[in-house]
Amino acid sequence: MIELNGVKTAFWPERVRIMDVGPRDGLQNEPYQLATSQKLALIEGLVNAGVRWIEATSFVHPKAVPQMADAAEVSAGLPRGNGVIYYALIPNEKGYDRALAAGIDHVGLVISVTETMNRKNINLSVAESLAIAEKVIGRAKADGVKVRVYASVAFVCAFEGRVDPARTIELTDKLMAMGCDQVCIADSVGRAHPGQVAGLLGALREKHGTERLAAHFHNTYGMAIANTLTAMQQGVSFFDASIGGLGGCPFSPGATGNTPTEDLVHLFHQMGVETGIDLEKLCDISDMVKDFSGSLPPSAYYRATRVKKAS
Amino acid sequence: MIELNGVKTAFWPERVRIMDVGPRDGLQNEPYQLATSQKLALIEGLVNAGVRWIEATSFVHPKAVPQMADAAEVSAGLPRGNGVIYYALIPNEKGYDRALAAGIDHVGLVISVTETMNRKNINLSVAESLAIAEKVIGRAKADGVKVRVYASVAFVCAFEGRVDPARTIELTDKLMAMGCDQVCIADSVGRAHPGQVAGLLGALREKHGTERLAAHFHNTYGMAIANTLTAMQQGVSFFDASIGGLGGCPFSPGATGNTPTEDLVHLFHQMGVETGIDLEKLCDISDMVKDFSGSLPPSAYYRATRVKKAS
Repeated sequence: MIELNGVKTAFWPERVRIMDVGPRDGLQNEPYQLATSQKLALIEGLVNAGVRWIEATSFVHPKAVPQMADAAEVSAGLPRGNGVIYYALIPNEKGYDRALAAGIDHVGLVISVTETMNRKNINLSVAESLAIAEKVIGRAKADGVKVRVYASVAFVCAFEGRVDPARTIELTDKLMAMGCDQVCIADSVGRAHPGQVAGLLGALREKHGTERLAAHFHNTYGMAIANTLTAMQQGVSFFDASIGGLGGCPFSPGATGNTPTEDLVHLFHQMGVETGIDLEKLCDISDMVKDFSGSLPPSAYYRATRVKKAS
Repeated sequence: MIELNGVKTAFWPERVRIMDVGPRDGLQNEPYQLATSQKLALIEGLVNAGVRWIEATSFVHPKAVPQMADAAEVSAGLPRGNGVIYYALIPNEKGYDRALAAGIDHVGLVISVTETMNRKNINLSVAESLAIAEKVIGRAKADGVKVRVYASVAFVCAFEGRVDPARTIELTDKLMAMGCDQVCIADSVGRAHPGQVAGLLGALREKHGTERLAAHFHNTYGMAIANTLTAMQQGVSFFDASIGGLGGCPFSPGATGNTPTEDLVHLFHQMGVETGIDLEKLCDISDMVKDFSGSLPPSAYYRATRVKKAS
């Protein structure tokens, strides 16, 4: 608890860690396809801006996600010797092998909290996904590789609706017990509200502390920044975001994507919380994304500062 | 203090009041000009959606704000017999006379917290503006009219930068002492962050309670919802918003406008806080705004629910 301008607030960290998931979660949900060289230019920009955690690509089958078919090429071209830690998404042990062969540092797995979403997403039961996670975590411990697992649709499921927090807590308990390095509580469809975020993350903090927790929000309903603030006040200090707000929501065609990294960094810097990231360099990358994609990134900070009046 | 999902939170009201300022603050900052009939259609839509406080127009000089030249016509055409309370902005006693002659219920005045902004905006010192407010408040008491004063640039000034909360508190103290019915703490340039909001509104609550406080945010940097949440947690329960997110920021050409009413209502409803407003009917009005303006309203809720995939 700290005091800010005389007001007692909940947790208010000095510093937070930010993972940019734009190259994977963002690009995967965009209608266009970038060349490998464009993806690497984007990643290099993130590195130069001071981003230290990057979800670089995904080793799922190219048929499932054609945007990530160049996962090995992207991995081979990653800027090194800079302290940046690269994650890749993997679906299973085979993906784990491919990711490690390609030189990726650490891996992420997605498990949906609801059976319906897990089935629709990866055609497995939650129990089957947990069994895969357990095997991957075991091998990763031996290999010195970290495993983060997304607890997907942690608040609301596109099929089952509002998710009972007890279910997300149960999944997290199991992952924590397996020795999972980080559980990323993900509002995958962007429908969580701050009341849910406070309740769930407060409960998880009390059970597990926050050292191994991360939060991942989408801005579908414009609540990503409010949800991030709320998660921070519950003690979370590791957040996902995507440069420019890349991404979208397969269930809301007009919706924006992940929390824009610029908006998240701006929020934290305004509140006196360090990120180690240079906001203007982030906007330079969004300029590049704008050129690559031909459309204006949804980041509010980007639009407020980089769009000039039509003359 | 209430407990939500087992987490102790600060103030969490059962119900909030929302003033839609789209017909005035919103339209005044849009590049196009609506016909009086279009403005009235928009206001009628708000009334039908359950909005009970509407800032309908402004009685400033038409040379200063040409978009509001039809203030008397708009006032004459307002839907009545429905319990809706209509406010109009006025610059001074002359504006007060015109507003009352036109049949407006209550009035609003703008005073900037900083001398530079007050001078640039209305070419008066803050002391001169306070003297006008005092006269208007005196007459209004006798007339049974309510006066709300916007404490403009309450957090950040486009010219003077970060505003010392002591200055906003001092202005608010003076207005409260005059018997001002409501002081609306306004982040006019959309640059406030939740730390500032918590600090200032917490301090104002301790001095004055929250019965006569309102909060007014712009979404320029994507923080309007986070700031609203924070103000609510400090005990504020009266909020301004504009339908669809109408409006803009004269200092940020690419920026969006006021807090979109849909997004605010959605936030509150998700959190179990009543507004009395029908969210889908609000979106119907934004459909109308889209047709009037030829561009997509910035409301996240609107975009997530009303934009269909291009087929």
